[in-house]
Amino acid sequence: VTAVTGTTDREAGGEDAPRRAPVVGMVGGGQLARMSQPPAIELGITLRVLAERADDSAAQVVPGTLIGSHTDLAALRAFAAECDVVTFDHEHVPTDHLELLEREGHPVRPGPAALVHAQDKALMRKRLAAIGMPCPLNRVVADAREVAAFAEEAGWPVVLKTPRGGYDGKCVWVVEHEAGVDVVFKEAGVEVLLGEAYVSFERELAVQVARSPLGQAVAYPVVETVQVDGVCREVLAPAPGLETGMAVAAQHAALTIAHELGVTGMLAVEMFQTSDGILVNELAMRPHNSGHWTIEGAVTSQFEQHLRAVLDLPLGSPRLVAPSAVMINILGGRRSDLTSGFVHVMAKDPELHVHLYGKSVRPGRKVGHVTLVGDDVDDLRERARDAAAHVRGDHDE
Amino acid sequence: VTAVTGTTDREAGGEDAPRRAPVVGMVGGGQLARMSQPPAIELGITLRVLAERADDSAAQVVPGTLIGSHTDLAALRAFAAECDVVTFDHEHVPTDHLELLEREGHPVRPGPAALVHAQDKALMRKRLAAIGMPCPLNRVVADAREVAAFAEEAGWPVVLKTPRGGYDGKCVWVVEHEAGVDVVFKEAGVEVLLGEAYVSFERELAVQVARSPLGQAVAYPVVETVQVDGVCREVLAPAPGLETGMAVAAQHAALTIAHELGVTGMLAVEMFQTSDGILVNELAMRPHNSGHWTIEGAVTSQFEQHLRAVLDLPLGSPRLVAPSAVMINILGGRRSDLTSGFVHVMAKDPELHVHLYGKSVRPGRKVGHVTLVGDDVDDLRERARDAAAHVRGDHDE
Repeated sequence: VTAVTGTTDREAGGEDAPRRAPVVGMVGGGQLARMSQPPAIELGITLRVLAERADDSAAQVVPGTLIGSHTDLAALRAFAAECDVVTFDHEHVPTDHLELLEREGHPVRPGPAALVHAQDKALMRKRLAAIGMPCPLNRVVADAREVAAFAEEAGWPVVLKTPRGGYDGKCVWVVEHEAGVDVVFKEAGVEVLLGEAYVSFERELAVQVARSPLGQAVAYPVVETVQVDGVCREVLAPAPGLETGMAVAAQHAALTIAHELGVTGMLAVEMFQTSDGILVNELAMRPHNSGHWTIEGAVTSQFEQHLRAVLDLPLGSPRLVAPSAVMINILGGRRSDLTSGFVHVMAKDPELHVHLYGKSVRPGRKVGHVTLVGDDVDDLRERARDAAAHVRGDHDE
Repeated sequence: VTAVTGTTDREAGGEDAPRRAPVVGMVGGGQLARMSQPPAIELGITLRVLAERADDSAAQVVPGTLIGSHTDLAALRAFAAECDVVTFDHEHVPTDHLELLEREGHPVRPGPAALVHAQDKALMRKRLAAIGMPCPLNRVVADAREVAAFAEEAGWPVVLKTPRGGYDGKCVWVVEHEAGVDVVFKEAGVEVLLGEAYVSFERELAVQVARSPLGQAVAYPVVETVQVDGVCREVLAPAPGLETGMAVAAQHAALTIAHELGVTGMLAVEMFQTSDGILVNELAMRPHNSGHWTIEGAVTSQFEQHLRAVLDLPLGSPRLVAPSAVMINILGGRRSDLTSGFVHVMAKDPELHVHLYGKSVRPGRKVGHVTLVGDDVDDLRERARDAAAHVRGDHDE
């Protein structure tokens, strides 16, 4: 990225030559791209976005957003031509397209060779096994007979996932016995599924690390995530009561994955904590819901960190600025005008941080979040739950 | 602002009626408007800007910026028509225009009746005297003879200021004796000047308060500001070693001024600390350089607070998140490509927060700032000075 490492003034033609700030292009116009705009503004870096629609969450707040599909090669090429580096707000860009962009000389971070492991869960399982990462028992399955065979080893219920395309619990099914398998294959509409043992975990954890092309890496504190129906509801940072040995093991696992897979930018590793230790559940190679607390709760937010990492700038400190931070998602509820809840929640809790994503409200859709930072995780959690409920309109008449 | 206090879904025609976020319009496209965009994005509030040029600091990062002059009534009217409330990044909008906008039904915050005291220093002095605020001895003067008469009482040197139009030490002169006065009048090009006694202060302090139309007000910690040639260089929060009595007196003075003048939004009161106590120097009714540290150093930044206040939303906590914060301005120096300093300063100090304003570099121009938050003010200051010097290019070969 020449604009960062920089030519000198003299080489570029003198002091008055106009200077272009580094341009980070993010494919996808969701809330992750939106939340990347504040640190870009602060750093004086230009963020550009390729969004499906002009009213997408990020398109509302990022000037010069290009409207186009992340599956359209022509749109991707036009977008990459205007950016110093291409990165992502989701993992749905076809790998082939990214390989082509790379061959054409556009820096893509994370590169397709790494990103494919966040795109294809079957490939991810294979690779994690190869580098010795503890994972749930798993097998690629093509029909009910194969699922039943797998269940003889893994036990019922079995978790079935489409290898590609899922997020927030979509494209994931928990099947109690063989009779349900055909329904899932029909609904999934794909040739093969990834079968995984149903893990009876104690709780879910997540670790985020950032890694730059030069190989510098930092790990954020391990957090506890609370998921309902596959959707993240709450994040507690750091994970309350997690013993140091397990925290270090979780961070070490995430750093190893980032290194072995050659990830650049943010990597989130979602894990199950079981009585036998940790098991890796999912990978995301971008800013992630489990790290929204870092905006106010860490010295360097995950969004700033991602920008720094993909531009190969030195990484910032991931340390917590207080003993605890709690983030609670606002899922779409009864109220469509979320700002109408501001008066109540801001008056009740002057320490509250409210984030809204500019998305129209649909039931269960992630439309915002609240964060509190302080000393007592239980107190923070209670206050954050109350605030999130008020913003979504649970207490409306 | 109906979009905030809100009609219910039913009144507005049902759940699917599109919802418009509250729109705050800021007149002026400088770095204060630019730094207002991150909290607007986070809160899901729409910020609009009226800027002189399409490449102004804020215009680069705020979609839909209207290009026009803050002295052009037609532009102001067109702008106000698209906003729920009009506020400012500077104090240079003609008072008459603002009075007209108000009469036409546009909420203007702060309103012209308050803002005029930040626009006209002579009026400000008169009003502060009327409400019993300690100020330097001052008098409106029309020629060298009147300045000499004033100096008989106030002593030489005398500080001369144009009543309107100054900022960052511009339009302020320190005159050592009568012989210099004519030069100043000629340079100033105005009929009368405000003469003030030269205060031999121990240091400069600043207090920021926020006040909402409903009258809710909060005070930020008193800070020490270090000015050179009338330009703010460093801010230490809280002011080191300030005794509690004086801190409370300073906060009380700022809250009183906000109340008596009917300020809405942020008010900065710059003060001299003298052996006899505090004297009020200048007022600014907008986010202010003395509060940039609040972005990372306070629970609620001055920029978010200003948005909340002008929308008549409940105010956020102004408390420091750590024992100290230090902000140091980056003034234009040898280097025009400021991002080329990132590699060095980010590698050296992973806790550093760098802010660049997207402005072209001219010597002495405010083009960015750095902030550090932590325990030891001396350590933070040393590190921040080093970082600011590196970004501006002082250490280039």
